[in-house]
Amino acid sequence: MQNGATSSQPIPAKIRFGLVLRRARESIGMSQEELGEKAELHRTYIGQVERGERNISIDNMEKLADAVGLPLWEMLRPE
Amino acid sequence: MQNGATSSQPIPAKIRFGLVLRRARESIGMSQEELGEKAELHRTYIGQVERGERNISIDNMEKLADAVGLPLWEMLRPE
Repeated sequence: MQNGATSSQPIPAKIRFGLVLRRARESIGMSQEELGEKAELHRTYIGQVERGERNISIDNMEKLADAVGLPLWEMLRPE
Repeated sequence: MQNGATSSQPIPAKIRFGLVLRRARESIGMSQEELGEKAELHRTYIGQVERGERNISIDNMEKLADAVGLPLWEMLRPE
């Protein structure tokens, strides 16, 4: 644990959620704009969420999980 | 699926999170006030979250999960 690389500190949930969201969206060939329309959220907001820049609310997380067809809990589970 | 009781519509994530949070907090004998101090959130806010009344942010969900010692993803997983 000398440099913290193997410490028990996980990556923040919003970073993980953003990474998994982007991967899920791309895997189904959906653009940020299409995801925004489906989830009723703005395209630029989607981009910020995917980069882990937003302290996203649980309701919006749920909308995005539904829109990419993944259970929310699975999107937050460490790999 | 006649009355919707067995439909695929799950309970909203914020309701599940609140129920699981309350159960976890009580199972370790922690008061809302103690949880609030540990997570640096107000006691009345904890009560609202436990009742599913708040559109809680991912950062606050993570603070509360850490404070009761559960992984956030597990708190959202259907039973």
